Amino acid sequence: MESAAADWLGQLKWDVQGLLPAVAQDAATGEVLMLAWMNREALRLTVESGEAVYWSRSRRRLWRKGEQSGHVQRVHEIRADCDSDALLLRVTQHGGIACHTGHASCFFRRLDAGTWREVEPALKNPADIYK
Amino acid sequence: MESAAADWLGQLKWDVQGLLPAVAQDAATGEVLMLAWMNREALRLTVESGEAVYWSRSRRRLWRKGEQSGHVQRVHEIRADCDSDALLLRVTQHGGIACHTGHASCFFRRLDAGTWREVEPALKNPADIYK
Repeated sequence: MESAAADWLGQLKWDVQGLLPAVAQDAATGEVLMLAWMNREALRLTVESGEAVYWSRSRRRLWRKGEQSGHVQRVHEIRADCDSDALLLRVTQHGGIACHTGHASCFFRRLDAGTWREVEPALKNPADIYK
Repeated sequence: MESAAADWLGQLKWDVQGLLPAVAQDAATGEVLMLAWMNREALRLTVESGEAVYWSRSRRRLWRKGEQSGHVQRVHEIRADCDSDALLLRVTQHGGIACHTGHASCFFRRLDAGTWREVEPALKNPADIYK
């Protein structure tokens, strides 16, 4: 594997839709910020630009994280898991907000006695993010 | 949402295969340990038992994490993301090894100048884990 450097994209086990789940983690705090999806082009562009590019499954297009919100993710390192079918990005989250809801992390709801309860505050009103 | 407590499983957006990606994070250190998959039953059993149960896509069956290795994950909290289509588990990793390769985390390879390079040591020989 070490010698097939050029094929680093091909060494990943893309799913039938050509996607992999990618977890973004704050490089400084360790907070898990979000889980999104990448196709080959998104990952290639991420490496090339040093900023996270995902594949939006809902919009069916490449999504430069922060393109509208300004909440860009600078990528410090990219890891692959043992099965080569999941990615972990260590990032600096510009603006301190990863979520389109204005929360620092997308994982702001906790299962609490059978209820998904919001346990983290929104830091900004989405209307003020996407104006 | 707060009132429909009984439907906390139904409030998640399971994919066409009835699965969701679940990220396990060490509750103490913040290290991202692995990404696996859950179906409704896996998540229900996880909540019921307090230990992570996943759905093995390769073996097509429920997989009580640690059932063979002893590397059980005690679950402290479960979070859902903004879109209700990804889960985050904060866990205590029994034995300090999440990966079947003997690494603490499954994300032990880093993209390094076009090569996936192993940057974390295996803590144990898999042959000694699965004996």
